[in-house]
Amino acid sequence: MTSRLPEALCNALRTLFRQRFSQGESTRLQHGRDESVHQPQMPDGVVLAENIEEIVSTVKLCAAHGVPLIPYGVGSSVEGHVLAPGGGISLDLSGMNQVLAIHAEDGDATVQAGVTRKQLNDALKGSGLFFPIDPGADATIGGMAATRASGTNAVRYGTMKDNVLATTTVLADGRVMKTGGRARKSSAGYDLTRLLVGSEGTLGIMAELTVKLYPIPEAISAAVCTFPDIESAVQTVIQTIQLGVPVARIELLDALSLKAINQFSKTTLAEAPTLFFEFHGSPAGVEEQAETVQAIAGDLGGANFEWATRPEDRTRLWQARHDAYFACLQLKPGCRCFPTDVCVPISRLAECIAETNEDIAQVSIPIALFGHVGDGNFHLVVLVDPDNIKEMEEAAWISRRVVERAIAMEGTCTGEHGIGLGKRKYLVAEHGEVAVEVMRAVKRALDPAGLLNPGKVLP
Amino acid sequence: MTSRLPEALCNALRTLFRQRFSQGESTRLQHGRDESVHQPQMPDGVVLAENIEEIVSTVKLCAAHGVPLIPYGVGSSVEGHVLAPGGGISLDLSGMNQVLAIHAEDGDATVQAGVTRKQLNDALKGSGLFFPIDPGADATIGGMAATRASGTNAVRYGTMKDNVLATTTVLADGRVMKTGGRARKSSAGYDLTRLLVGSEGTLGIMAELTVKLYPIPEAISAAVCTFPDIESAVQTVIQTIQLGVPVARIELLDALSLKAINQFSKTTLAEAPTLFFEFHGSPAGVEEQAETVQAIAGDLGGANFEWATRPEDRTRLWQARHDAYFACLQLKPGCRCFPTDVCVPISRLAECIAETNEDIAQVSIPIALFGHVGDGNFHLVVLVDPDNIKEMEEAAWISRRVVERAIAMEGTCTGEHGIGLGKRKYLVAEHGEVAVEVMRAVKRALDPAGLLNPGKVLP
Repeated sequence: MTSRLPEALCNALRTLFRQRFSQGESTRLQHGRDESVHQPQMPDGVVLAENIEEIVSTVKLCAAHGVPLIPYGVGSSVEGHVLAPGGGISLDLSGMNQVLAIHAEDGDATVQAGVTRKQLNDALKGSGLFFPIDPGADATIGGMAATRASGTNAVRYGTMKDNVLATTTVLADGRVMKTGGRARKSSAGYDLTRLLVGSEGTLGIMAELTVKLYPIPEAISAAVCTFPDIESAVQTVIQTIQLGVPVARIELLDALSLKAINQFSKTTLAEAPTLFFEFHGSPAGVEEQAETVQAIAGDLGGANFEWATRPEDRTRLWQARHDAYFACLQLKPGCRCFPTDVCVPISRLAECIAETNEDIAQVSIPIALFGHVGDGNFHLVVLVDPDNIKEMEEAAWISRRVVERAIAMEGTCTGEHGIGLGKRKYLVAEHGEVAVEVMRAVKRALDPAGLLNPGKVLP
Repeated sequence: MTSRLPEALCNALRTLFRQRFSQGESTRLQHGRDESVHQPQMPDGVVLAENIEEIVSTVKLCAAHGVPLIPYGVGSSVEGHVLAPGGGISLDLSGMNQVLAIHAEDGDATVQAGVTRKQLNDALKGSGLFFPIDPGADATIGGMAATRASGTNAVRYGTMKDNVLATTTVLADGRVMKTGGRARKSSAGYDLTRLLVGSEGTLGIMAELTVKLYPIPEAISAAVCTFPDIESAVQTVIQTIQLGVPVARIELLDALSLKAINQFSKTTLAEAPTLFFEFHGSPAGVEEQAETVQAIAGDLGGANFEWATRPEDRTRLWQARHDAYFACLQLKPGCRCFPTDVCVPISRLAECIAETNEDIAQVSIPIALFGHVGDGNFHLVVLVDPDNIKEMEEAAWISRRVVERAIAMEGTCTGEHGIGLGKRKYLVAEHGEVAVEVMRAVKRALDPAGLLNPGKVLP
């Protein structure tokens, strides 16, 4: 297939970017797919930008030619955010990987959008600070902001919504906008930073971000505890949160997830419903939290409380947790994952998971369940062969059921993955027609030509 | 002066609201002034709404007649938010004072916009939960959300930005929009809740809000500590925050503020630079935090660490702190306050306060300094006779100087009061032309006729 791009645009991009503008099939394919089951939809070309000026030039050229522009980080999205249903240019920001400033005394850092979370934490070594937001993949800070990502630490440290202080954003017409600032709070005008966080590249392209950092706790301890059934594990979570224990991480994994982790990470964890905990604080505080949680778990049948106190044991444990998604994919060679990601008020969590497990019992495909249950957020890793119609139908049924259940329980169709292409059909069910009309009005106000990541978020 | 309102509008409002629509001078004056130095600007009429349907009717009538509409809570704003520079209808929501739901197990409550923070906390008695956001006045939850308010607990519990989960909002054309939800996190679409929080009634009228609640800590202790100078008090704050001590409140008051408090609240506190602390946690955790902070303060010359452990002593202490604004007003009978409210990165706080004190030494008017310094946020209570031109000029000079200084230090012109009328002139200096143009575009998208609280926020 030859490019649908206007020749004048291609010439201009070639002149500006040389080797960093590509129309090659493999580059386009790499930028037209994500980590999920969505069928690849390739862009017509890929630009690797290295600074804001290059983003501005690309945005202005695309605007002049009416060509869509799709920001791209590392492609770890699971809702089709980086796909190019209408073609256009994929703007790869992975080369914008400079940590621009670390203000240790204020607890913030300014990074280019292509810096990944692990890269930022590496740059923070020796500062006594860390950046807590940790989706499973080593995603870029820009991508994480765009999808309002979170992860295992969100129950204590919040999501990207809570941790982006400021952005430098390129608008649809190429103007460069600063939003927010380094003050810890402000009542100065509309919260454009929060409007951009979660906008999935549809309102502007975040080029630089200032994020909050946190002191590395004096003491950290982690533990694993197995339960006779999911229900008792979930009840342990609910009681822990309702007691106000400031737990840093509290993660649920079902037996199938544990089996996948053991195979993938060479661990020997019990293959039963399990909670992973982490406690942050002073040595005495951590001990106190751990005792409280251990008592709750004990009352509910939790057994084999195993502690990981050495840093290397903790790292191994949490690496295993972060690899759970990839570990599950290995359960069925060649499969892809049909993503699900719901979040409900915690009082409904046990019921939501129980009803979901009844659905799971009715289908033939393997489905693992795990999640950040301290926030009421859980995922199903639904393993399918995308070419098998029956499996895809089963996956779609499971996904629709769990989303509709979550919305009926006053929850959300996506806790942390975003809407992308995959969840657009639920946006009205969750927010109502009026809110979605207002979202459309905001989109028109900021991107009247509709060229920034078209087809995403809005149904 | 007779009303500028169209007779047809008055007739319709009279039919709908009877005694709850008023054009009386005293009601209009009460709704056309706030707690600050701004000259009153009266609306042409006042409507007391009691439910969402009545807000919708009023909005639709005002839209049909092209008449401005200004939401009103208890009038405790200090930046002119409730004034009516273009006349119109003041929509008083204080009658919408029902706590609609308390979900203790999920830690949230849904209230009508006119519920005040004290009313909500009264309703929570016995639930084991509290709502922490506490501006000085007993403001409404709606007004606090509209101005993105915070207060003494923000260093631990965040601001209204962090604590509003959902809203039911009446748009400029009378449509009713739901935003957000009760899930603790969501990546589903644009964050319209955060767009409304801090929009000061210019994008929509928040009629109902769901806010986060927190478990009342097992242990609370409060303390007062005096310092030889402001510098050592500020250094104590900076070191406390940088160490990551999870202090719940850390408030600075200068000697003049203490004098005012003693006179107003009949306390006998030392009239010197003072920090007020509060620690929340387990008994052991609170003791540990207190020891750490006491050691920091001791090293910096802090003396007379006085503890308030009994609840009634703590309440008296914090009531005195909350009354500081009104106490200062009594220092100069008949005066008004010229509000200031800046916030800077904490590494710049000592320098910002020191330079500000040099300015204060150069003017004749009394100026007290206090604030939520754990966030880098402080206020000057600048006491003026509004009819005295020299005093007003001095106040304007002080205010402009401290705002320009804060912005130059990467801070904000308002940490928690909002922009209103008073700070519009600084919006471009803080955010730049492009961000302010985008704010205008968002305003046009949501309120094309410009009838919702016109003249506020945007310069």
